[in-house]
Amino acid sequence: MKKTLMAVALSGAVAGAAHAQSTVQVYGNLDAGLVKRTGQSLSIGKRAANTLGFKGTEDLGNGLKALFQLEIRYEPDTGTLEVGGNGVQRQLFQGQSRVGLQGDFGMLRIGRGLTPYHETIGAFEPFHALPSPAGFYTDLTVAGYTSQPLDPSGASHNRWSNAVWYNTPIVSGVQVNTAIATKENNGGAAVIGRGSEAFPQYPAGAQASANPFSVSATYNNGPAAFMAGYERNAIESKVWSIGASLSATPELKLMGTYSRQDQEHNRLANADTRSWVLGANYTLGPGKLLAGYGQKDTDGLQKVKQFSLGYEYSLSKRTYLYVDASRKRGLPTNPSAVNHYDVGINHSF
Amino acid sequence: MKKTLMAVALSGAVAGAAHAQSTVQVYGNLDAGLVKRTGQSLSIGKRAANTLGFKGTEDLGNGLKALFQLEIRYEPDTGTLEVGGNGVQRQLFQGQSRVGLQGDFGMLRIGRGLTPYHETIGAFEPFHALPSPAGFYTDLTVAGYTSQPLDPSGASHNRWSNAVWYNTPIVSGVQVNTAIATKENNGGAAVIGRGSEAFPQYPAGAQASANPFSVSATYNNGPAAFMAGYERNAIESKVWSIGASLSATPELKLMGTYSRQDQEHNRLANADTRSWVLGANYTLGPGKLLAGYGQKDTDGLQKVKQFSLGYEYSLSKRTYLYVDASRKRGLPTNPSAVNHYDVGINHSF
Amino acid sequence: MKKTLMAVALSGAVAGAAHAQSTVQVYGNLDAGLVKRTGQSLSIGKRAANTLGFKGTEDLGNGLKALFQLEIRYEPDTGTLEVGGNGVQRQLFQGQSRVGLQGDFGMLRIGRGLTPYHETIGAFEPFHALPSPAGFYTDLTVAGYTSQPLDPSGASHNRWSNAVWYNTPIVSGVQVNTAIATKENNGGAAVIGRGSEAFPQYPAGAQASANPFSVSATYNNGPAAFMAGYERNAIESKVWSIGASLSATPELKLMGTYSRQDQEHNRLANADTRSWVLGANYTLGPGKLLAGYGQKDTDGLQKVKQFSLGYEYSLSKRTYLYVDASRKRGLPTNPSAVNHYDVGINHSF
Repeated sequence: MKKTLMAVALSGAVAGAAHAQSTVQVYGNLDAGLVKRTGQSLSIGKRAANTLGFKGTEDLGNGLKALFQLEIRYEPDTGTLEVGGNGVQRQLFQGQSRVGLQGDFGMLRIGRGLTPYHETIGAFEPFHALPSPAGFYTDLTVAGYTSQPLDPSGASHNRWSNAVWYNTPIVSGVQVNTAIATKENNGGAAVIGRGSEAFPQYPAGAQASANPFSVSATYNNGPAAFMAGYERNAIESKVWSIGASLSATPELKLMGTYSRQDQEHNRLANADTRSWVLGANYTLGPGKLLAGYGQKDTDGLQKVKQFSLGYEYSLSKRTYLYVDASRKRGLPTNPSAVNHYDVGINHSF
Repeated sequence: MKKTLMAVALSGAVAGAAHAQSTVQVYGNLDAGLVKRTGQSLSIGKRAANTLGFKGTEDLGNGLKALFQLEIRYEPDTGTLEVGGNGVQRQLFQGQSRVGLQGDFGMLRIGRGLTPYHETIGAFEPFHALPSPAGFYTDLTVAGYTSQPLDPSGASHNRWSNAVWYNTPIVSGVQVNTAIATKENNGGAAVIGRGSEAFPQYPAGAQASANPFSVSATYNNGPAAFMAGYERNAIESKVWSIGASLSATPELKLMGTYSRQDQEHNRLANADTRSWVLGANYTLGPGKLLAGYGQKDTDGLQKVKQFSLGYEYSLSKRTYLYVDASRKRGLPTNPSAVNHYDVGINHSF
Repeated sequence: MKKTLMAVALSGAVAGAAHAQSTVQVYGNLDAGLVKRTGQSLSIGKRAANTLGFKGTEDLGNGLKALFQLEIRYEPDTGTLEVGGNGVQRQLFQGQSRVGLQGDFGMLRIGRGLTPYHETIGAFEPFHALPSPAGFYTDLTVAGYTSQPLDPSGASHNRWSNAVWYNTPIVSGVQVNTAIATKENNGGAAVIGRGSEAFPQYPAGAQASANPFSVSATYNNGPAAFMAGYERNAIESKVWSIGASLSATPELKLMGTYSRQDQEHNRLANADTRSWVLGANYTLGPGKLLAGYGQKDTDGLQKVKQFSLGYEYSLSKRTYLYVDASRKRGLPTNPSAVNHYDVGINHSF
């Protein structure tokens, strides 16, 4: 009897420890490597986004859970917060800051995070939604669409501040995810759009002309998966995408996306964009080969074409080495080919 | 014997784990909801301050402890650090950054944190010191007093940088808390005060004209509690308050404060302010009703009147839903009534 | 049998808990105290750098480990990120942000951190490399050398962004540490150097004229230790140092450094600097006395002389109180003597 009690006591202590731990989970990843791009000197940079996060769930009983997540993004080569396209540091919790409830009804969250459209389509991209220029996720996969046109210059293209998210439960492999944002202005500069410099369509400080809205549906059925998504941003650009993937063999996964962006509401020209990306992942032991090719065609502009090859070698489930080579033609800033090479290490914690 | 040893070994392992854990506790809360105010579009915001903190204590033996606490404040709707009244992000550890010792003598700390006056009076405010406009804490409860007039514009009103805190032990329900700050300038703009724009009373970069000083005394006696506090800031504004609360029944708690601010040292007019707030909390099962009414009367200015109702529904000890409705008249920026409504979720971790 | 199983189960649970914990270790220290310097009012400041860090290692098998470390620096008196010499806040992970592998071959890391030269010489400085003006580390110990001349104004003087580090294993007490940085510009202002204001030697945005390179060798042999180091920065300033320490008795440790900086590449005058520091640490029970004297001689400038005394009283292995008194003559900003006094507490977590 005594032994049982002691065991229970110990067990209780252990469970107590585990419970105290589970309150906040500190997690993240650190990805750094050497990068060489056409026209730039050898630099140290990243391939994946770098995160340091804090998250947790609380069991409320009856299948209901409370959950929160706060995610810092940073640049490991300089130790700064993540730096946007304009060279300015982004907010502390660029990754996400959300709180919500999860239960039989699905999951409801409020705050800042990836839009459902962007969150879903990433699974159909051959470089698993890496922000690296070697991947397709931030440009060709989404037909050049951005979720945040009224946010400060340099903001990332796939998140919303001031939004509410709802994910349905998964029923027969089908899940629908939605989000809607308020019309609040997030501090961005004016968008000239169909106006003029003197009278921009969206002056600085302007609110959204419609509530940004995002929806995606996914279907997973054993080796096959499909998605269809739609999103409209604060200046009423719209994007539609479909994606599919097939695990043809245990080693080989094929995937593809087709996307279309409509910017008629805020552009006098170059308002219609279509893009497609085809890709494959091939796993061989601890190694994985990534390959993709895609095109983006905006009316009135040169066609953008990209071909990328990558290789990841896993040292463990949490750590891998990588090397990429990519070539992209037709960028407005550099219409001739830009080559991108990187080699580095990615460690999750 | 062997079993005992094993149990001890296990027990040691568990204790070791517990010890390693206790070094740093990661804690915080995430509060987000929908907010609607007169004259503003529907937005996503907060009701409580949002925190992510790191704290710990170390047992030094003989009843002596070392302790530290670092507290980040952030905005969950956008993922930024907490934003001040001027729209600018505050410092990383806006909440607090303090280190100190605790023992039979009381507690001595150094760094940045809430002033004793502000820390104490919050317990006598019917919206438990929430910074939300639905509460009274940041304005009527303290007669409009600010602790940080020489800090950067947009700084919070209830903290000191560069200070030393001393809390007495609690003896017969009585505790006295004090703090004194250095005269260091904290980077704020000039304060014209009794000077002119050309010759401000406190030019930019000016040091405090007297060491900021804060003291409060509290008395807890079963269902009743009292407080009396005094504080003087860097430009020699002074505030006095008394507060009382009574748990009339297990469900009902009544409370009230009376405060007076003297700004003679740095104002040519509107230098004397008196305010009072009466409130009640009523608990019914997992729900709690919050109610308060108060007035602030500054000589020469329109009287400010506020009435607020709130309701909190606990899903657990760590998570609750809330809804508030509040009406405030006499604000300098909007003398007619401003209504404030919010509904949201607060999750502690 | 059942008991054994239960014990194993418990043991597994404990081990699992320990493993989950070890993924990310949250650590740091908080150091704050009173500071009085000649010509300045009493202030609250720090003696040691203040850190809040996240680190971890992953066992990859075969003696190989992955490791990462992210280190925030902050000012506990105001709660801001660490503030540089120009009054501007530094990057979030000012301390370090590195990822790498460790094994029989040594340790290879990439990111941002202390240079090997600076990391090594600190062990031969009598105030254990404290950044406090009471110590010698940031000036006399390194002959006034800075590692980061092309970084933003106010950057610390002993770190590199965009670098790769390699540490050899320790063989017979000998270890060699090296690092090399890319030529990337880190956002600093122009360096006039041997140019003119109109045509600076390194214009704003200029890249390094040579890859910054740092190497140090250390030898530890029981009570004696030696080091020799060399480093070249982005504008080709060079520094050499030798250091030695001897634990003469269990209580007494003696140490000294001699350093020389060559700035011929970027200075028309005052290009050659020599410095030396002699110091001692004397331990008596929980107390430790620190003493040092040194000189820095730059050709064409007044000689700098510094004498410092410090005392640390340990309340535990993690917490100590300190008091320092220091006198420095010959500073360009104040050629007459500047006295520095501080008293405070340092708590590690």
